[in-house]
Amino acid sequence: MEKTNVAIVGLGTVGTGVAKLLLDHGDRTARHAGRTMWLKKAVVRDLEKARGRIDLPEDVLTDTLDDVIQDPDITVVAQLIGGLEPARTIMLRLLESGKDIVTANKALLAEHGPELFDAARRLGRSIAFEASVAGGIPIIANISQCLSANQLQSLEGILNGTSNFIVTQMDEKGSAYADVVRKAQELGYAEADPTMDVDGTDAAQKLAILAHLAFGATVDWHDIPKIGIDGLDPADLRYARQLGYRIKLLATADLAEDGLELSVAPTLLRIGTPLAEVRDAFNAIRVVGDAVGPVFYHGLGAGQMPTASAVVADLIDTAVGRTKLTFQTLEYFSSENPPRAKQRDTETLLGRYYLRLQVANHPGTLAAIASVLEKHAISIASVIQHESESPDREHDPVPLVIMTHEATEGSAYTATEEIEALKSVTGPVTRLRVKG
Amino acid sequence: MEKTNVAIVGLGTVGTGVAKLLLDHGDRTARHAGRTMWLKKAVVRDLEKARGRIDLPEDVLTDTLDDVIQDPDITVVAQLIGGLEPARTIMLRLLESGKDIVTANKALLAEHGPELFDAARRLGRSIAFEASVAGGIPIIANISQCLSANQLQSLEGILNGTSNFIVTQMDEKGSAYADVVRKAQELGYAEADPTMDVDGTDAAQKLAILAHLAFGATVDWHDIPKIGIDGLDPADLRYARQLGYRIKLLATADLAEDGLELSVAPTLLRIGTPLAEVRDAFNAIRVVGDAVGPVFYHGLGAGQMPTASAVVADLIDTAVGRTKLTFQTLEYFSSENPPRAKQRDTETLLGRYYLRLQVANHPGTLAAIASVLEKHAISIASVIQHESESPDREHDPVPLVIMTHEATEGSAYTATEEIEALKSVTGPVTRLRVKG
Repeated sequence: MEKTNVAIVGLGTVGTGVAKLLLDHGDRTARHAGRTMWLKKAVVRDLEKARGRIDLPEDVLTDTLDDVIQDPDITVVAQLIGGLEPARTIMLRLLESGKDIVTANKALLAEHGPELFDAARRLGRSIAFEASVAGGIPIIANISQCLSANQLQSLEGILNGTSNFIVTQMDEKGSAYADVVRKAQELGYAEADPTMDVDGTDAAQKLAILAHLAFGATVDWHDIPKIGIDGLDPADLRYARQLGYRIKLLATADLAEDGLELSVAPTLLRIGTPLAEVRDAFNAIRVVGDAVGPVFYHGLGAGQMPTASAVVADLIDTAVGRTKLTFQTLEYFSSENPPRAKQRDTETLLGRYYLRLQVANHPGTLAAIASVLEKHAISIASVIQHESESPDREHDPVPLVIMTHEATEGSAYTATEEIEALKSVTGPVTRLRVKG
Repeated sequence: MEKTNVAIVGLGTVGTGVAKLLLDHGDRTARHAGRTMWLKKAVVRDLEKARGRIDLPEDVLTDTLDDVIQDPDITVVAQLIGGLEPARTIMLRLLESGKDIVTANKALLAEHGPELFDAARRLGRSIAFEASVAGGIPIIANISQCLSANQLQSLEGILNGTSNFIVTQMDEKGSAYADVVRKAQELGYAEADPTMDVDGTDAAQKLAILAHLAFGATVDWHDIPKIGIDGLDPADLRYARQLGYRIKLLATADLAEDGLELSVAPTLLRIGTPLAEVRDAFNAIRVVGDAVGPVFYHGLGAGQMPTASAVVADLIDTAVGRTKLTFQTLEYFSSENPPRAKQRDTETLLGRYYLRLQVANHPGTLAAIASVLEKHAISIASVIQHESESPDREHDPVPLVIMTHEATEGSAYTATEEIEALKSVTGPVTRLRVKG
């Protein structure tokens, strides 16, 4: 049987999972690849630390990248180092030495996609990146190949498992944000510093990649408007539920005539719709194609083995030769191809909104707010106002929740500003998008 | 730009959809294929009928198969004729004349897979068949490629949209089976003769294909135990709901140490779980892999454009060259490869059961039934028995519904037979599997 020599660079959580699959399940990978997938080298920074994690044959483990670069027998490399540098430089060196690359590093692709992909094309090599978005859900292959007969019209996703775990726990247990983050860290669902997950950065980077694949948009992820879940108040989850909705950190790419709407934000989704019911650390993606209609994917978006599953599938595709054909044909992240979709102005975007305010408990307050909304042609769909439970109920501010019918983002923004300026409104207004 | 000449054989609903995608969206297919996908010929039986369906350039439409077979420029053919013959003979002739095939004909693959695939391999050709199972859900590519790092452990699917539409309508509207079938026929969700859909044949053929891809089982679809929805009583849907379940026609492939459980049967699924919530003509598939965990797919399982979407994706994959690589590597339906999983004996299969009986309304009846179950070590999880609403309530039989804890299929079968033999039980016992 033919043999493809593979190397792993970086034996962290995912790298260790990939090594396990290659070492323990050679029969399986050989059956799908039509050849032996042979792990020849695993490059680590710290040999001792790596030995504690996984039992590798002694000649496989090395702390010298040149053992891979200078070995012409190694043709495919799973490059599993996180962050931007030295990951970028290492990937370029590996490409230059003739290796095809498999990576899970979405930040690297979101920041340096064009440079890396152009280099790979120039050198006749390929980069596979299924593991970079949504872990175990094979959304890259599905968009790039399986749905290729479609013009996709929209893509909505829960792309950050950490955020979804936190929101689910807050919703179901009524816990405060900080308590759930601590629990998520203990369970390994959140990093010691979870900023990139909870502030929407991770989801925005993944959305930038998906928007390029699905719509041909060339988007800098920094330009995607994003709101994280770090400011989410349990009260909003509670009110949303009373209105028949759950709040999820939703990444949206929606194609309209005047361009592509892109956003990452906590969004109210109607209870019972598939995305609203995605719990804990799961990811899910719903795409709508003009021929296929809606297709919904649900699976584990992170974790050692789901991500390793995606990496090994890419290693197999690369060894078989499928990746090269796809890579050459689609010309992803090419700095030469003009973008097929531009990011649209959000000002004229139509949507429904959830507003939560603290208002003074006296006559005329609701009338004043309603008249601001009316002025901006925003009609009210539902209102929640409960009597204050405070002993001093005459003077304490009370929460007021308003769900609107469709309005433009521009008018909702201006109306919110004007409402905040009302004397009877204390503190800022919480404003969230509503879908479904 | 390079050009791949394509032919369609059979311009029925799906064929017409494929022609539309090729003719109206050449830019889209060219972008994904890296070459022009040129529809050179469409072969039909009746030229007049075809002209009424779609406006094709005059030199494209033909009623002569030889116009395709003798044209060496045509390299890929979407063979979209249903049934076994002449579909089988035509496919063999096309393969022999050097064409790669794309098909949606699951019955043909389920009956003649090994013969056709062996012929294709011998001739150096390929057969792509994404559209043969679950229409718009790209489950073939997902199992064959995207999840290739996994040993799949189970696969559960709602694979027949007609049955699911009927069951959903019966459940939500409380309508009788015959009325819903008529409505489904009017809406185009059911054929004039819907037997193959509602008796489980269609789902069993699809399951046989998926079981081969996912588990390497070589199964004659006739050997898959199947129960359709044609005998389903609205009463069972009602009682199931009272117990917190919905009934769906579920296709199951479950890998255990002693083999693969395969079945198609109306099954109680817990309300709120993803498969239970699949409505109307949608299909859904849940697979569990040892690395990736559970992955859930949901989409339109039939219809012109969802199926055409799958066919055109296969045409593109074939033109690009991916199909050939996959086809050669995986050796699907090879008569030379030994099966990797055998169908297991159902006797020892563990499951929970729903039993509905008509019982005489007098003392001792429940005790007699309970003692039969006890004898076979089957414990009762819940019971529904309502007072008879008949004026002659002392003498009319009343329905009794029992949900059991886990029991083997063998003991459930024997217990059911013994219960049916009890004097106080009138008529046959309805017995359904319970999952989730």
